[in-house]
Amino acid sequence: MESYLEKKIYYHDTDCGGVIYYANYLKYLEEGRTEAFSALGIGPQKWLEAGIIFVVAHVDIDYKSPGRYADTIKIISRIEKIGRTTIYFNQEVKRDQVILVQANVVLACVDKNLKPRSIPEDIKKILVAKCPSGRV
Amino acid sequence: MESYLEKKIYYHDTDCGGVIYYANYLKYLEEGRTEAFSALGIGPQKWLEAGIIFVVAHVDIDYKSPGRYADTIKIISRIEKIGRTTIYFNQEVKRDQVILVQANVVLACVDKNLKPRSIPEDIKKILVAKCPSGRV
Amino acid sequence: MESYLEKKIYYHDTDCGGVIYYANYLKYLEEGRTEAFSALGIGPQKWLEAGIIFVVAHVDIDYKSPGRYADTIKIISRIEKIGRTTIYFNQEVKRDQVILVQANVVLACVDKNLKPRSIPEDIKKILVAKCPSGRV
Amino acid sequence: MESYLEKKIYYHDTDCGGVIYYANYLKYLEEGRTEAFSALGIGPQKWLEAGIIFVVAHVDIDYKSPGRYADTIKIISRIEKIGRTTIYFNQEVKRDQVILVQANVVLACVDKNLKPRSIPEDIKKILVAKCPSGRV
Repeated sequence: MESYLEKKIYYHDTDCGGVIYYANYLKYLEEGRTEAFSALGIGPQKWLEAGIIFVVAHVDIDYKSPGRYADTIKIISRIEKIGRTTIYFNQEVKRDQVILVQANVVLACVDKNLKPRSIPEDIKKILVAKCPSGRV
Repeated sequence: MESYLEKKIYYHDTDCGGVIYYANYLKYLEEGRTEAFSALGIGPQKWLEAGIIFVVAHVDIDYKSPGRYADTIKIISRIEKIGRTTIYFNQEVKRDQVILVQANVVLACVDKNLKPRSIPEDIKKILVAKCPSGRV
Repeated sequence: MESYLEKKIYYHDTDCGGVIYYANYLKYLEEGRTEAFSALGIGPQKWLEAGIIFVVAHVDIDYKSPGRYADTIKIISRIEKIGRTTIYFNQEVKRDQVILVQANVVLACVDKNLKPRSIPEDIKKILVAKCPSGRV
Repeated sequence: MESYLEKKIYYHDTDCGGVIYYANYLKYLEEGRTEAFSALGIGPQKWLEAGIIFVVAHVDIDYKSPGRYADTIKIISRIEKIGRTTIYFNQEVKRDQVILVQANVVLACVDKNLKPRSIPEDIKKILVAKCPSGRV
């Protein structure tokens, strides 16, 4: 299951080196994951009802090619694996066929006090069903 | 009463036009006002106790000269006037003697639900005492 | 002539006060102006060819109502007046019929060294034609 | 050789989850590395003279504990290894003794056209001298 999000790059995305600032890709990755969750019907509204949040526990990101002002980028998000309390995403940002970044992102399920907890069963069911290597 | 804050400019402050991105000055102005409040002993901790927040209601900002990567800037914050529910700040950002921006910022006192309310008396007293044109 | 841009609000747009951070609206306004220029065929590519940039000289912004996580906002951009070296924009950010911010933004035409210069005639012609109060 | 940078957290650093937004740590890490380079006399001014830039090629970051509004954080930066074209940093962000994030960051030396090139000899000499495992 892959989710796509397109986005245009503006001045505020770039730095004086003339390229997209490296931290900003993590914003695009957040946007991509949010759209992936929403496409499955388990977006932030659902989290609120379940009393949980998914927070980022780990990011591993490769910067392959620089993005630039006025680029249109595509954020591709795949859920790779589901753990008891964690979700593993594989994500890419591309401009046409050029890969700008590749990232592995681990989300952890926490309660309102940011304490780790199991992913609620109904959310987990949906995730596992959509994820090829979904079984724990 | 003037408050000063020094700050160094890094890549993330700039854009691909080679200068400080115009929205980022509002971050520096926030930092300057927070330090001004803290210097008077009425910083965010005090707001929390009083059940209020000061939110920005209006900004009027002149961009006079571009700031650049590796600049050291100084944020100068003056409280100009106190209303029943509002505080008027006059702020400048300078690099040495060069004025980068000049801004007038109006803060509004709101409760936890973001509804307008009077500035608490003990906070108002401190503000009026420090502000030359302080009386409403 | 009005230009519209829709945008979704994500975590990175907000602050711990629970609302959209006040400086971020200036990013949305930049995006709205860029789309307004592009719709007229005088976007950044055209600036590059003409050897100019439009930089922000002044912003006057009223914060009317707080925006929040997961909101879809609309940025409305109108060119109000054209000067010899300046363009006056009137812009709004709305969520449905609720106005979040209203802003007046003045852009100045500068050359590559950020020195003020007249708006190139071909760009000015297009702007004046589209702007009701366009004549200087 | 360790470099330290202290920094205060303001509203613009946080998100509506009530904690420091995860992408913003990459800004602090940038600031920390810049100070590390400057302390060695090989800061951005030196890069400019040498016709090079160090760009981020890879980041591996663990989010251990949430940072919050009004925290004072410390960024600790260590150069771990020097390659022909790369520098390996190990960095931490702490609040008192609490580790907020731990990161491994790889920088690549590129020329003005962002093409990879060897680290200039004079810069490399300084780096290797200061780096315990400095030899390639």
